[in-house]
Amino acid sequence: MSDKAQENSEIPVGIDQTGERVEFDSMGEVRVPADRYWGAQTARSLEHFAIGEDRMPIELCRAYGYLKKAAAIVNERAGLLPREKCEAIVAACDELVAGELDDHFPLRVWQTGSGTQTNMNVNEVIANRAIQLLGGELGSQKPVAPNDDVNKSQSSNDTFPTAMHLAALGALDSMLLPEMELLAEAIEAKAQGWMDVAKIGRTHLQDAVPLSVGQEWSAWAEALRASIADLGVAREGLMEIALGGTAVGTGLNAPEGFSEDVAKEIARLTRLPIRTASNKFYAQATLDPTVRLSAGLRGVAVALIKIANDVRWLASGPRCGIGELKLPQNEPGSSIMPGKVNPTQSEALLMVAMQVIGHDTANAMAGSWGNLQLNAMRPVIAANVLHSIRILADGCASFRVNAIEGTELDRDRIGHLLEQSLMLVTALVPEIGYMAAAHIAEAAAKNGTTLREEAIASGKLSEEDYDRIVQPATMIGDDLSGA
Amino acid sequence: MSDKAQENSEIPVGIDQTGERVEFDSMGEVRVPADRYWGAQTARSLEHFAIGEDRMPIELCRAYGYLKKAAAIVNERAGLLPREKCEAIVAACDELVAGELDDHFPLRVWQTGSGTQTNMNVNEVIANRAIQLLGGELGSQKPVAPNDDVNKSQSSNDTFPTAMHLAALGALDSMLLPEMELLAEAIEAKAQGWMDVAKIGRTHLQDAVPLSVGQEWSAWAEALRASIADLGVAREGLMEIALGGTAVGTGLNAPEGFSEDVAKEIARLTRLPIRTASNKFYAQATLDPTVRLSAGLRGVAVALIKIANDVRWLASGPRCGIGELKLPQNEPGSSIMPGKVNPTQSEALLMVAMQVIGHDTANAMAGSWGNLQLNAMRPVIAANVLHSIRILADGCASFRVNAIEGTELDRDRIGHLLEQSLMLVTALVPEIGYMAAAHIAEAAAKNGTTLREEAIASGKLSEEDYDRIVQPATMIGDDLSGA
Amino acid sequence: MSDKAQENSEIPVGIDQTGERVEFDSMGEVRVPADRYWGAQTARSLEHFAIGEDRMPIELCRAYGYLKKAAAIVNERAGLLPREKCEAIVAACDELVAGELDDHFPLRVWQTGSGTQTNMNVNEVIANRAIQLLGGELGSQKPVAPNDDVNKSQSSNDTFPTAMHLAALGALDSMLLPEMELLAEAIEAKAQGWMDVAKIGRTHLQDAVPLSVGQEWSAWAEALRASIADLGVAREGLMEIALGGTAVGTGLNAPEGFSEDVAKEIARLTRLPIRTASNKFYAQATLDPTVRLSAGLRGVAVALIKIANDVRWLASGPRCGIGELKLPQNEPGSSIMPGKVNPTQSEALLMVAMQVIGHDTANAMAGSWGNLQLNAMRPVIAANVLHSIRILADGCASFRVNAIEGTELDRDRIGHLLEQSLMLVTALVPEIGYMAAAHIAEAAAKNGTTLREEAIASGKLSEEDYDRIVQPATMIGDDLSGA
Amino acid sequence: MSDKAQENSEIPVGIDQTGERVEFDSMGEVRVPADRYWGAQTARSLEHFAIGEDRMPIELCRAYGYLKKAAAIVNERAGLLPREKCEAIVAACDELVAGELDDHFPLRVWQTGSGTQTNMNVNEVIANRAIQLLGGELGSQKPVAPNDDVNKSQSSNDTFPTAMHLAALGALDSMLLPEMELLAEAIEAKAQGWMDVAKIGRTHLQDAVPLSVGQEWSAWAEALRASIADLGVAREGLMEIALGGTAVGTGLNAPEGFSEDVAKEIARLTRLPIRTASNKFYAQATLDPTVRLSAGLRGVAVALIKIANDVRWLASGPRCGIGELKLPQNEPGSSIMPGKVNPTQSEALLMVAMQVIGHDTANAMAGSWGNLQLNAMRPVIAANVLHSIRILADGCASFRVNAIEGTELDRDRIGHLLEQSLMLVTALVPEIGYMAAAHIAEAAAKNGTTLREEAIASGKLSEEDYDRIVQPATMIGDDLSGA
Repeated sequence: MSDKAQENSEIPVGIDQTGERVEFDSMGEVRVPADRYWGAQTARSLEHFAIGEDRMPIELCRAYGYLKKAAAIVNERAGLLPREKCEAIVAACDELVAGELDDHFPLRVWQTGSGTQTNMNVNEVIANRAIQLLGGELGSQKPVAPNDDVNKSQSSNDTFPTAMHLAALGALDSMLLPEMELLAEAIEAKAQGWMDVAKIGRTHLQDAVPLSVGQEWSAWAEALRASIADLGVAREGLMEIALGGTAVGTGLNAPEGFSEDVAKEIARLTRLPIRTASNKFYAQATLDPTVRLSAGLRGVAVALIKIANDVRWLASGPRCGIGELKLPQNEPGSSIMPGKVNPTQSEALLMVAMQVIGHDTANAMAGSWGNLQLNAMRPVIAANVLHSIRILADGCASFRVNAIEGTELDRDRIGHLLEQSLMLVTALVPEIGYMAAAHIAEAAAKNGTTLREEAIASGKLSEEDYDRIVQPATMIGDDLSGA
Repeated sequence: MSDKAQENSEIPVGIDQTGERVEFDSMGEVRVPADRYWGAQTARSLEHFAIGEDRMPIELCRAYGYLKKAAAIVNERAGLLPREKCEAIVAACDELVAGELDDHFPLRVWQTGSGTQTNMNVNEVIANRAIQLLGGELGSQKPVAPNDDVNKSQSSNDTFPTAMHLAALGALDSMLLPEMELLAEAIEAKAQGWMDVAKIGRTHLQDAVPLSVGQEWSAWAEALRASIADLGVAREGLMEIALGGTAVGTGLNAPEGFSEDVAKEIARLTRLPIRTASNKFYAQATLDPTVRLSAGLRGVAVALIKIANDVRWLASGPRCGIGELKLPQNEPGSSIMPGKVNPTQSEALLMVAMQVIGHDTANAMAGSWGNLQLNAMRPVIAANVLHSIRILADGCASFRVNAIEGTELDRDRIGHLLEQSLMLVTALVPEIGYMAAAHIAEAAAKNGTTLREEAIASGKLSEEDYDRIVQPATMIGDDLSGA
Repeated sequence: MSDKAQENSEIPVGIDQTGERVEFDSMGEVRVPADRYWGAQTARSLEHFAIGEDRMPIELCRAYGYLKKAAAIVNERAGLLPREKCEAIVAACDELVAGELDDHFPLRVWQTGSGTQTNMNVNEVIANRAIQLLGGELGSQKPVAPNDDVNKSQSSNDTFPTAMHLAALGALDSMLLPEMELLAEAIEAKAQGWMDVAKIGRTHLQDAVPLSVGQEWSAWAEALRASIADLGVAREGLMEIALGGTAVGTGLNAPEGFSEDVAKEIARLTRLPIRTASNKFYAQATLDPTVRLSAGLRGVAVALIKIANDVRWLASGPRCGIGELKLPQNEPGSSIMPGKVNPTQSEALLMVAMQVIGHDTANAMAGSWGNLQLNAMRPVIAANVLHSIRILADGCASFRVNAIEGTELDRDRIGHLLEQSLMLVTALVPEIGYMAAAHIAEAAAKNGTTLREEAIASGKLSEEDYDRIVQPATMIGDDLSGA
Repeated sequence: MSDKAQENSEIPVGIDQTGERVEFDSMGEVRVPADRYWGAQTARSLEHFAIGEDRMPIELCRAYGYLKKAAAIVNERAGLLPREKCEAIVAACDELVAGELDDHFPLRVWQTGSGTQTNMNVNEVIANRAIQLLGGELGSQKPVAPNDDVNKSQSSNDTFPTAMHLAALGALDSMLLPEMELLAEAIEAKAQGWMDVAKIGRTHLQDAVPLSVGQEWSAWAEALRASIADLGVAREGLMEIALGGTAVGTGLNAPEGFSEDVAKEIARLTRLPIRTASNKFYAQATLDPTVRLSAGLRGVAVALIKIANDVRWLASGPRCGIGELKLPQNEPGSSIMPGKVNPTQSEALLMVAMQVIGHDTANAMAGSWGNLQLNAMRPVIAANVLHSIRILADGCASFRVNAIEGTELDRDRIGHLLEQSLMLVTALVPEIGYMAAAHIAEAAAKNGTTLREEAIASGKLSEEDYDRIVQPATMIGDDLSGA
């Protein structure tokens, strides 16, 4: 780093001014709040897109920091950007990545479909911060200009999907994947502890043959494991980035080799195996890799719905439902019914999962609107996948800590239900055939008697045979892989 | 109002304390921030549902103000609530409705599916504010208790869907319906002004017979009008409220006549024709009226997609697309391509519409999860419909102000395209038949000639006949209702 | 009817020939099976759209019979169609409506998005059948031509959506609405019979305060009633038809007054209050009324999911679930577990409902693809709404006949569960307050005792008071409207 | 094969009887059509599930042939099934796989959610056919019984998802994957041929910088290639089968080692790397692998929508649209506008894709309804994925043969549009900066002049520089990977 940059890099983040400042772009001058780094195009967007309160996800803005830094470094190496400018841009990017510039990204999700306004927001903030570091005048675009310097060799069209990939990778790796892993482990630990507790199975919600509590829980863990693996495939698809395609994929105005070099630089910065997309026209005209990620998140949601719903039904009661599980009592359940405890963690997780499925519908629709050289529905997909990742991650954590880890069995209830079931009759089929067994079960159901009574009354087998064959403990097998 | 209440009602909103305060509920004591009105159950929810950053919509919390006020008044009349308590509760409710207590509703959407935690948040905030007004000690539940006083004759199960209805009605009436009306009017004004401008029609994206620009725009206005009407039907369904059903619909613990009386009181307060639901079991076990509203919002989205997409295609170009419309140039369109202007308002509106469709998928799914006496997926639907209303309203406004109102025609381009079209041949069909007309069009297409040349060359009709029959101005008719 | 037509109308439907026949259209000659009425364009579609096995719904083809008949009559009156041709066309249309020509509509749903190929299929079949009736030569287009006679004053663009509306109205009125009515009545009858049977309520799947079985069932009936009403609104929207707009909505090539006259004629034929759409550009460029119908069908699905799911859970068991309902045993439930009976009617209805929701997603997406003067995604929506209507209607019938009507209560079980519940404690709240009541319930839960024991042990109230207050029969109220 | 079986295997398929035959199951006797192989449970299902006309996909019934054959062989080896019975069952299974028994599977999709009725339909048909081959009496269940022999060691709960996987694999491998490959190749061939044809790029539908036609098409091919790869991952997930878990996953009533052995046998028969699922509880309680397949199919749909939509817009016109592509003229496009040709193949494919997305919504919803030991929404997902595969495969074939392969360029139009574009100005940015370039483009737009004129007038660069820099041929680069 040059001396001057070094010296200036000590200027703290922030603009100690009030009132307004004049910024300009190719359409003319615009006034902006004097204490913000953004420039004319950000201000125009704020004015023209006052839609709702959904901000462009800050993770995406921060992810831009990696790519702007990498681009500056590669541009400098190619002789396209003076070292001093490069160093100031790099310093600003480091602050952006670190979250120090978060307050300077006010734009809405509902803006231009290419994300250009956010790309310009990034360019303007970095440029002004770099100008500040270099002792220049904010808004002068000197010595660092948003388009000609910070955006050099780039376009919104290749940077925005790149930032989407980087932001999603960061969110997956720091939030969702670890939380899914922890939830799977927590479920597996419970499953392991209860692997020998025989209970009644239920198919079609109706009493069926027995299995163990551990086996039942193992299915949930397996569903999470499979979802993690599926997300892993989608994650791989995000490693390919569009950067280097510039406006339409041809790479116009970027130097030879820029694609490869900038991908390597980003890989170095993020420690991820980022690589340049082999077909930039595909990488810019579609959002397919992100739509695939959305499908993976949808898969997580489908798995979680099954788990959360099973948990709340198995805990239903306490006296008039299934009542096999006892959930932690985290809060009073009812404003009117004293002493009521509800499966609220399941409900929260179910709603999270449904929201993710809804987001996925929007994403598929938006993903199908790639027109010619650009899919211009990017911000909605970017926001939705990042939101889905966040609420799934937090939902998994909350469900694990506040429900799964504290769940206990009502072993008396489990044993009582198992004893009552008529479906233990199935074990007799290899001995006496399906028809005879069916008639025994029907008789017990009709007469309100036990299977044992009716089995012996049928004359089809002896008491000894019955007791030898109909043993739940042996009926549940000894592992997870069936016969 | 009693003297004491009057006097105390002058205590300004806010708690001038720092640190923490002890609150309690049936499960014990909890510490809360001393400067907040909320109590123990809100604090428990904050701890146990730290999922994402999506707060329960403040419109819903404010809507609770109407119903808690109405309930207090009816309870007081029934002799169940002392006048002094009632007046303090009413005063707090007025502040809630006015938005003065907004900072005291920190809970997430992702909580218990009944919304109990938000109902208790409301009960706690009102109770503590009432206690403050009455000179009591915060957290003491004296003289006003969250459950026994503020929630008297109520349950989360009947109040939450009531608040959902009231909040949605408020948002529809103050935001979406007026904005849709304005957008329809803006489009109608344009249509009116361009009713005689003949242009080429397009079906299957292919050149077809002419219509006028005004006729084309009239279809968009009509789509909005039909959506407004459809929303009106859904809006009607929201007038029926669950309040008075209490825990499961039977009205247990509410006084005789409470349902009718409280509905009348809410009607008086809101000036809406609110009425009590004839079947409380339906009103609490389903969310069908809100799912219908969601379908209505989805219908708005479908209409807006058609409009916004047509606009951007008609404005495509400027030189290599259709180019019939000139949109306002609100901002530079590209970070790399100088001078580019994009249909960004259309794109933002398209993304809004897709998000609404995604929300609707989640809502339908959540709506189908009514189990037994309660649909416990309420918060997600509440949040989604209110969010959809907001972004649709803002999206309509932005599209109107920043795109529609400033749109102009490129009349040269429109005239030029119309002249070129081969589909004017259709006007000849009644004269010479479909087959002969088809052959004329094909010849012109093949030879790169004009229809007129080929028509006359065909010998099927004279120059005079051609010029008489093939007149775009007469082909477009004179109104909107076809032949 | 003229003598000749009268005479010829006795020619039975069918072509007694084998091999192939030559047909032609504006692009040339095509060979078709000699025993079919269809012509060249149908044959081209069969060749070019060999996609799956989904045929254009026959109800839609039959509905075309009404509109082609009405158009012929109005054209004849306007002096545009000779009486003889008109009569032959009318005769063919009557056969089409009666289903006698069903074998002549082989086209797939996956064809041109305007439905032109099916309109031409209809035109060709009617033309050839009319030719046959008039003694002409099949394939000669004389004396009746598909385009110039049968399609006179029409376009696919206005006829296809008209046929969609008529077909949907027919299916609603003959199938779905009656079946929904019957199901609602069957549920209401059960509700009425069980209005005094007290049972435990369940919210969040957890034991709650009591209600009656009849009250519980009444919620289902009300959900159906509300869905019927909602469908009624959508049905009204179908009464407006596009016919008379011809190619793009201007009515080009149709005589003055055609729109009004043909709508009246269709109203006369169908005995429905059909009227011409006030804006033909909207009526052809969008499919909004059908998308609204789809939303209504989605609403039915949402209601049915709640009902079918409640039924199967209430019938879960027989010994290890809730077990309050006994469903008819229609078939052995399991291929391996003898004597098992499953809630299969619920499952079938749930799957039907999910399919309808899936269709609705496709319909919303297709509905949003109206481009310029035409929505060219019509066939998929037409097929989906008609399919949804059919499977919903049959699903309702099957569920009613095979499940609802034969459902019985397990009154012992219901009584037993009610007695056990701890939530009867809620009735004590007005007497002793929420907190004290909560502690009683918690003590009973913890100690495995009864509420009564703990209530009295608490010293908060006497045995007499307890017995007076805690009476499920009085807790359930006496009607459906709550307090 | 034993002598007797050998001899009897020559009995042709079919039952030469009329009227009815008595069949029985555990609930009693039922009459069935005498010329059908099915038995009592099939007949009960036909009676109780008369819902719509959607039959269980025959591919799924045939796939059952593989697994029933494999199970018989493994059972025989384990000493549980006499060789003679085994051979007869195997012979019947071979016929089933070969499609010779297709007429004997009349059941609807809308049946029990486990697919038990179809499993029993298969068991009954195989049993009766085996009985026939062995010279027994149809309906006697001797010597081959549907439950005790054909279903031995199995349950619907493990066989149905296994059959789903096998059927989907067969459909993917024989239909969809080859057709996607052919379509990708056809597009690649076009792309290759047009790799040097420079054209105007379009982003946001607005004129952008140039690319080549081949580059534009390469994005479509790449989207297909990525979808194929994604389907490949989902396909891998189908290799794991549930068979061997029997009723709830424990493998009750199946012999030790059955899972492994039967998977190997199926692998041998199908030549696919089928393996037994490591967790049977997961494999039976969820449908996650099929939901993942559905997501993969949804991804194909998203890619196809982009492609088909681009094609129809690029071919829009012929005179008043973009008009760069000329599609094959397969049929007259309009019933009213002579000579009109429409992008009907695109429209059909778009509708197919939307239907697939709708099916996917239903599948995600159904997939999330796994309850306890069984997801009882199987048939709807089975039907939807097989239907989606079929219409996608046929849709790809139709689009390729009838649109892509015959598409040609309008090179004059392409060249003309390229010349006109103002966005070539972008090439000047590295030379004169973004701002100056923007002002040149704006001046040309405003004055209706050429870029060259304004560039030179600006004084920013010489004619020589302009002509050197602004060359579309060099602006498009020379490959697909950008800079």
